[in-house]
Amino acid sequence: MNKKTLFPLAFIPLLSTNLQAQKDLQIERTNKRPNIILFMVDDMGWQDTSLPFWTEKTNYNKLYETPNMERLAQQGMMFTQAYASSISSPSRCSLITGTNAARHRVTNWTLQKDRMTDRKDSLLEVPDWNNNGVSQVPGTNNTFVGTSFVQLLKNNGYHTIHCGKAHFGAIDTPGEDPHHWGFEVNISGHAAGGLASYLGEENYGHTKDGKPVSLMSVPGLEKYWGTDTFVTEALTLEAIKALDKAKKYHQPFYLYMSHYAIHVPLDKDMRFYEKYKKKGMTDHEAAYATLIEGMDKSLGDLMDWLIENGEADNTIIIFMSDNGGLASESAWRDGKLHTQNYPLNSGKGSTYEGGIREPMIVSWPGVVAPSSRCNDYLLIEDFYPTILEMAGIKKYQTVQPIDGISFIPLLKQTGNPSKGRSLFWNMPNNWGNDGPGINFNCAVRNGDWKLIYYYATGKKELFNIPNDISENNDLSSLHPDIVKRLSKELGSYLRKVGGQRPTFKATGKPCPWPDDIN
Amino acid sequence: MNKKTLFPLAFIPLLSTNLQAQKDLQIERTNKRPNIILFMVDDMGWQDTSLPFWTEKTNYNKLYETPNMERLAQQGMMFTQAYASSISSPSRCSLITGTNAARHRVTNWTLQKDRMTDRKDSLLEVPDWNNNGVSQVPGTNNTFVGTSFVQLLKNNGYHTIHCGKAHFGAIDTPGEDPHHWGFEVNISGHAAGGLASYLGEENYGHTKDGKPVSLMSVPGLEKYWGTDTFVTEALTLEAIKALDKAKKYHQPFYLYMSHYAIHVPLDKDMRFYEKYKKKGMTDHEAAYATLIEGMDKSLGDLMDWLIENGEADNTIIIFMSDNGGLASESAWRDGKLHTQNYPLNSGKGSTYEGGIREPMIVSWPGVVAPSSRCNDYLLIEDFYPTILEMAGIKKYQTVQPIDGISFIPLLKQTGNPSKGRSLFWNMPNNWGNDGPGINFNCAVRNGDWKLIYYYATGKKELFNIPNDISENNDLSSLHPDIVKRLSKELGSYLRKVGGQRPTFKATGKPCPWPDDIN
Repeated sequence: MNKKTLFPLAFIPLLSTNLQAQKDLQIERTNKRPNIILFMVDDMGWQDTSLPFWTEKTNYNKLYETPNMERLAQQGMMFTQAYASSISSPSRCSLITGTNAARHRVTNWTLQKDRMTDRKDSLLEVPDWNNNGVSQVPGTNNTFVGTSFVQLLKNNGYHTIHCGKAHFGAIDTPGEDPHHWGFEVNISGHAAGGLASYLGEENYGHTKDGKPVSLMSVPGLEKYWGTDTFVTEALTLEAIKALDKAKKYHQPFYLYMSHYAIHVPLDKDMRFYEKYKKKGMTDHEAAYATLIEGMDKSLGDLMDWLIENGEADNTIIIFMSDNGGLASESAWRDGKLHTQNYPLNSGKGSTYEGGIREPMIVSWPGVVAPSSRCNDYLLIEDFYPTILEMAGIKKYQTVQPIDGISFIPLLKQTGNPSKGRSLFWNMPNNWGNDGPGINFNCAVRNGDWKLIYYYATGKKELFNIPNDISENNDLSSLHPDIVKRLSKELGSYLRKVGGQRPTFKATGKPCPWPDDIN
Repeated sequence: MNKKTLFPLAFIPLLSTNLQAQKDLQIERTNKRPNIILFMVDDMGWQDTSLPFWTEKTNYNKLYETPNMERLAQQGMMFTQAYASSISSPSRCSLITGTNAARHRVTNWTLQKDRMTDRKDSLLEVPDWNNNGVSQVPGTNNTFVGTSFVQLLKNNGYHTIHCGKAHFGAIDTPGEDPHHWGFEVNISGHAAGGLASYLGEENYGHTKDGKPVSLMSVPGLEKYWGTDTFVTEALTLEAIKALDKAKKYHQPFYLYMSHYAIHVPLDKDMRFYEKYKKKGMTDHEAAYATLIEGMDKSLGDLMDWLIENGEADNTIIIFMSDNGGLASESAWRDGKLHTQNYPLNSGKGSTYEGGIREPMIVSWPGVVAPSSRCNDYLLIEDFYPTILEMAGIKKYQTVQPIDGISFIPLLKQTGNPSKGRSLFWNMPNNWGNDGPGINFNCAVRNGDWKLIYYYATGKKELFNIPNDISENNDLSSLHPDIVKRLSKELGSYLRKVGGQRPTFKATGKPCPWPDDIN
């Protein structure tokens, strides 16, 4: 064999993979897709901020300090009528699947597999709701199966980060782990909807030997154990590390910054505690205020990261809470119960505004007008199609129908998808606490009107929300026509989407639908 | 308002989500998809087992003890001519993307971003190969972008578990993390292709303070630190925990059990060490034998789990190694170098059979005949379409072309996809070690013939593999027609798929393709 080599004169360059990658990179940079941060706070009420979402500045607005929420509002749009469900699981399952709680049937909170969390009721039996939460695959009883928008983001090239509370599916079900939903990174998210401890000194709910003290011990933050790092801070530090990494990937990112704050227990964040004590607040209320400010600092830290890393102009930030502020537990809240969301009535668990109206802000540089305000309503499942549209993902397939409607027209001020639209809530459950508007009811909001129907008694309440934000004046006897119309609409909707209702223990018969009775 | 309730007599049951889920469960159970375990060993040679893959039982077969490989072979089919690339990254990138190494261009090992790992060569310059590995998204230079079969498994309802070595993409690139490839669970997989230590006593390569001692420190096994748990055992225990969890999900699972064993360093697995010392083996060789037996025990433990959990009849097990056994480092291997894969010539890094022929077994109850043997050849990228076909996934989209061909017909003995087929290798790189067939070459196998072409010298070697498994007799001068035919085929293929070649430093010109010269 002739071992001498012939040197070809013509070197023909091939379309190399590297050249292709560089080309792709250029295309991507030209047509840059925005990063998206969904900053979700747990159990935060509409008034748990110095940013006034009402027409008036309340005493709560004066008491709490959330400078970064104010800063975010200056960048973008405040939503004064943003709604969620009244407790966590229904809201978060609506968020991840884009479906209304009446359809997904995760109408109370979830934790352990096949374990109903409802308090026993003497009169009513709760339906066989989806107490195992949502799942991305079939095969598990009492779950609602859905494709998550996060999976769709990932499938379309987004780097997807989960940080904090997940609360999608019960322990030992496929939905328990954020990784199963399309999150590429999971920091401390699992089946639990609460936390055992905020304190690094308490290893976030682990013994010295590293054993969890409860099902709500926060996983994955071992490196902060034994330090004075509050969990809100630890999660923020880890989120920022994940963002530092994300930047190296040259992918747009989706960060679900889902704080455990401001859920009970009301541990004191000592970085802020003395300040609030000096304002004359009780220990509990001062601790509550520190949870809020710690969360707000996290928001500011993320905003600072975006600026320092040149990503501020290309990042959408959505601020939201999953349900109203806790106002029904004297063990945690001081002062008169059910007033902590004033001017809204009641709080977490209630179908009154105090349980479902949330502080919401959206910043989208170049798209959303700075310091703008939107008084149109929307519902938590609307986040699903909205976020996908923000990411430029228009065509996608899901195993479930999507009830949510994109609120991009509200952001761009090009239309009003809430005009004529009805929003629906269904809670055929017994959460546990008592209070105004809490447990065994369903509701519809249409225009200015809101009808609440109570399964146990058949009682119907009608409120004109803009005129009576505190829902003090039941106008049902004055407007039987509206009651009838809304009852019909609510009943029809619940039946259409497979909503559930409780049963009377005495007879074994289901409670009537709202339009079954006058 | 009339608060009296009307009890409707007719209770109309709706198609509930729970009923739907139960229905889905039934469908799934009727048409049950198999679980799949890909048991991948690192750097394991064709003879590193008591199971004879050759026609004769070698001294190595007598020395090593792998009773569980023997057990697996009794259940299924041994493949005597299963091929991979000669080093890890090319093989693993072919596995995860289904493409030939010449196409994906990850032709040497990867670790740090933008850091070539080739040893400097006086004569040749390596091409700008994809030293950042494979990536699931575009945007990173020097990566090959591909859709993984794991993502497709996940998208189709499989619960996907990664355990052990990943080695898909360089540090700080999108491909570095198994979660990014569609794995729902990741146990200890990252960018590194090796490990700092097998020993729990050494915290698998971490200081007492928990700091990694190198980029190859094994992540995620903190709970075994300070114990005498060998890493192979720790990974197996964690894999079994993940399987316990998988069982609760009612999903078919895909477990990629990707052992760090039997890669160097040759730490001693003391569970087996004395036995091999008593056989008269040197310290290094005895340690090597313990790595093999520890890996084999892991296989047995997984097989036992399947039986104990009623999943044995519905689980496919594929046993494979990623390249030949290490035979080129006197620092690790005793005896004459390049003989450790006898009767195969050379070892890891070589295009001779010792570097690329792998021990492979497939057990598929009810489909693959027990104690069967297949002498037809296949290549590592064939795993991609095969595994998808095993999972019943027939239609899928990928961003890359798939070079692999399903070997299901071989398993079912219904056809021979290797008939007339050519297999291709390309390594325009300088791995680092020297030895027969190592560095700067490419090769083609067609039928009985194998042609190796050396870029630096233009030398061509031709072997009749069935007649000369040790590749001692170069028949190129006897069969110039075959040399010409295979040179043409090899050159054409490399150009077609965008294969790369080195450049002469002296002239700056590329080395000729195999068919450029006689």
